[in-house]
Amino acid sequence: VLFVMTDADLDIRRPTLLLDEKRARRNIVSMARKADLARVRFRPHFKTHQSLDVGGWFRECGVDAITVSSVTMASAFANDGWTDITIAFPVNIKEIEVIDALAGRVDLGLLVDSESTVARLAASLQNPVRVWLKVDVGYGRAGVRWDRPEEIRSLSRMVARAKQLAFTGLLTHSGHSYHAQTREEILRIHTESIGRMAAAKAALDGALFEPCLVSIGDTPSCSVAEDFCGVDEIRPGNFVFYDLMQLASSACEAEHLAVVVACPVVGKYPDRRQIVIYGGAVHLAKDTACDARGRSIFGCLAERKRNAWSPRPDDAPVVALSQEHGVVELASDLLAAVHIGDIVHVLPAHSCLTCGLHTEYRLIDGGMVRRICC
Amino acid sequence: VLFVMTDADLDIRRPTLLLDEKRARRNIVSMARKADLARVRFRPHFKTHQSLDVGGWFRECGVDAITVSSVTMASAFANDGWTDITIAFPVNIKEIEVIDALAGRVDLGLLVDSESTVARLAASLQNPVRVWLKVDVGYGRAGVRWDRPEEIRSLSRMVARAKQLAFTGLLTHSGHSYHAQTREEILRIHTESIGRMAAAKAALDGALFEPCLVSIGDTPSCSVAEDFCGVDEIRPGNFVFYDLMQLASSACEAEHLAVVVACPVVGKYPDRRQIVIYGGAVHLAKDTACDARGRSIFGCLAERKRNAWSPRPDDAPVVALSQEHGVVELASDLLAAVHIGDIVHVLPAHSCLTCGLHTEYRLIDGGMVRRICC
Repeated sequence: VLFVMTDADLDIRRPTLLLDEKRARRNIVSMARKADLARVRFRPHFKTHQSLDVGGWFRECGVDAITVSSVTMASAFANDGWTDITIAFPVNIKEIEVIDALAGRVDLGLLVDSESTVARLAASLQNPVRVWLKVDVGYGRAGVRWDRPEEIRSLSRMVARAKQLAFTGLLTHSGHSYHAQTREEILRIHTESIGRMAAAKAALDGALFEPCLVSIGDTPSCSVAEDFCGVDEIRPGNFVFYDLMQLASSACEAEHLAVVVACPVVGKYPDRRQIVIYGGAVHLAKDTACDARGRSIFGCLAERKRNAWSPRPDDAPVVALSQEHGVVELASDLLAAVHIGDIVHVLPAHSCLTCGLHTEYRLIDGGMVRRICC
Repeated sequence: VLFVMTDADLDIRRPTLLLDEKRARRNIVSMARKADLARVRFRPHFKTHQSLDVGGWFRECGVDAITVSSVTMASAFANDGWTDITIAFPVNIKEIEVIDALAGRVDLGLLVDSESTVARLAASLQNPVRVWLKVDVGYGRAGVRWDRPEEIRSLSRMVARAKQLAFTGLLTHSGHSYHAQTREEILRIHTESIGRMAAAKAALDGALFEPCLVSIGDTPSCSVAEDFCGVDEIRPGNFVFYDLMQLASSACEAEHLAVVVACPVVGKYPDRRQIVIYGGAVHLAKDTACDARGRSIFGCLAERKRNAWSPRPDDAPVVALSQEHGVVELASDLLAAVHIGDIVHVLPAHSCLTCGLHTEYRLIDGGMVRRICC
């Protein structure tokens, strides 16, 4: 029988974010071990979980340096005792006063990719900060292009000459790996990225830039790659929970999936083989993954089997989301097994955005874990 | 000069939801007047704003009956003194106890489209509720199909025979109108919808179903249509703020737009004519509207001119969103005018989802308005 409710589901009334703590802890241990073996610093990104408690699980694995994506998030984790924090987002000079205050109490890393921002930092900061030059190795979002040695050199020089700014190295995020469909494609992007980072670094020959660390970040590459040649630091974040997008590109296995949203079934429409769940864009987020047929889906039902979620993207995809409604298309056998009033588990396409819509995680073994609100 | 910051922008540091109160009040007055002229009950949907204060603006226009999309939202507005509330979402029987308690203190309307739910309501509720049969006139999400008179009749009979359930009528949401590209297309859907509702109602001849009201809901139709023949009640929600999606389909004009997200510019990339803003999927929501070339965009910059926002979907579209970053593509003249450290105003594709990501609205004429957290 499929989709039998577990005891833990019995008192669920509304869309509820469920977290498998064992699984998340295993993901953390495994990535920490990989970093150890590769002799790279593990500076996990905390934007996916945004929870002080989950942060504690990382601490238990020996992690003492973290990445965040906003000043607010940096402040929240600094207040929880984290003392080595990189804000992996282009410096927002509107927040320069908070940044300066934060730099006065923790070892703070910042990202820059423009002269105007470096000038503002140099002119305004009272406290010392580490500064990374953000490099674009092909994602095309932020950063100085890897193949512009002149620009890399002049901006790095500007940083190195400013009194409060300690030039730290080159940092990239190969976000295009999230669109990869296979492990091979992820590896190809990873190999290209570290090659391009090496080329960018070659532009910075000279004592002014010693040491010049290289930091990379995306979960797909960090999950799949074994070769981190020339890399000093990795900053994956999504791997703590993974999701359907990562599963679809083979960056993880089903056994690594650590979060789902439990949703009540409120409607059943056998003629179009669909159910409607209480679980919409405000509970799941409107991001998509590719199913085997290349169709964009917002997530899929996952069955809890042998202490892991077994996702069903092919026979139970979430095909539409409105504000509060989700529409799930079911194969005939599943349709027969699901009833109005049941609780189903939805594996999200993109766990970072889904978790961002909830204020707490319900642990499947009991208890709650809060998120900070950034 | 384009995109000059206003005084109100000067102290904005992070992505901030801005609300033009005058504009929103005008939208409310205008829709209330339209309902009056058409002699239909105005039962606005509060899911877009989810604010007690904005609810007060409706009250000032004589509104005393509202629509919400969750039991939680219904409770919040009931606590604020609203006494006539329809929950326009298929009954979630997992919340039946809260629903029953709510029915004990307000005039509560519910939606049903299945025998199993009607049976559960009949067996469990202590307090009386109004019950609407949800009808599907073509959207294909929830509801009994309009062209199944037997099903409509038998389910309505089941409702009418249950002691605590007062059969109230037929309710639909023509959500497919949100995908319309023109006013003509919206009108075509509207005309088809009210025709189909009339056909559905014809299945309910007889004293058992007197009165049998007809309630329709979508903002595009309610904004564009003049003919509400056979309709007793309208439930639009999005019209209070409108957005790029509504503008693109001509359901509103630029002068009706009431919310934007103010975002700091953190990166500028002249060679690809893009800027990166601090404003990502967690501030804007990943929903899309169609631009004039048929491209899906996540929003666009809007310039504040003569007390209204003048949106620029063609020369300043938001072309990508990640968790915290937004990428905006700019025409050359705009690119020259925008600098790192500026605040730009982003008109969201879909205001319901965007507002759902913020805890408060900053009024452009000063002050703050809180959202309830559902």
